Amino acid sequence: MIRVIGIDPGLRNMGWGVIDVAGSKLSHVANGICHSETGIELAERLLSLHAQLTRVFVTYRPQTAAVEHTFVNKDGVATLKLGQARGIALLVPAQMGLSVGEYAPNNVKKTVVGVGHADKGQVAHMVRMQLPGVQFEGPDAADALAIAITHAHHGGASSFAAAVARASA
Amino acid sequence: MIRVIGIDPGLRNMGWGVIDVAGSKLSHVANGICHSETGIELAERLLSLHAQLTRVFVTYRPQTAAVEHTFVNKDGVATLKLGQARGIALLVPAQMGLSVGEYAPNNVKKTVVGVGHADKGQVAHMVRMQLPGVQFEGPDAADALAIAITHAHHGGASSFAAAVARASA
Repeated sequence: MIRVIGIDPGLRNMGWGVIDVAGSKLSHVANGICHSETGIELAERLLSLHAQLTRVFVTYRPQTAAVEHTFVNKDGVATLKLGQARGIALLVPAQMGLSVGEYAPNNVKKTVVGVGHADKGQVAHMVRMQLPGVQFEGPDAADALAIAITHAHHGGASSFAAAVARASA
Repeated sequence: MIRVIGIDPGLRNMGWGVIDVAGSKLSHVANGICHSETGIELAERLLSLHAQLTRVFVTYRPQTAAVEHTFVNKDGVATLKLGQARGIALLVPAQMGLSVGEYAPNNVKKTVVGVGHADKGQVAHMVRMQLPGVQFEGPDAADALAIAITHAHHGGASSFAAAVARASA
């Protein structure tokens, strides 16, 4: 069995979702949102997100991680903010010694729903189908679980085997 | 006397420069570049930058920090990369308990050279004038020293006094 964490990066709301993968069987472990409030210094917000996300890793001990590849748009200010949050989302698993998969939003949708242009409602529905009984802490947490499911499908035996080898080393 | 660090964020080359400020007198302490190579996983690059920059803080023990406010342009991919590196540049001083000033490039140029549209050569020249004998480890390190000088000028007595109070608490 492999424990997988998915992270949907954001400066205000950073979603995370943890699943266990045993062969083709997936089961939900936990999901949630790391928050940082506007109105405090940017460095303090990043510090808070780093501490919250580190706590998630320490609590649930995932063995491999995946982060959504941020959609780059023409709003440079928004892209920069997201980039800063994404830096934290990538740093924390690396600090835990995990390799980090990156998946584009369309790839996540295609894997979870079957089509690249699915809307958020469809994604959440399919995540519920694959993780019976799951309750989402919020939309970003549902997205994070979709990323974890995508990593479970795409990570393949090789990267998981490597993760297990590291975990048991 | 207050020790100030300036950071010029970048994913491949992250410049840093440390100066001591005693009233209106500035003196150079050290400068350098944290590197991360292309061709390795992004999370690994951020981890390496985090480790290198943390080492700089542990070695030189600055009391206040400033990071250049990234210029946002229409190249979303470049902005995202810079944002991720900037997340690390802001996180490290915050983890050390320091407040972090942010200055736009034009503000740095205006402070150091006197005009907002100065080129890199002029900035480097004026940094040399204010820090006699300084040798730059690279252009990004010269920029980082300019950011430190800007913070020394703009930080004002209040933020430095607060830093001293924290340092001696």
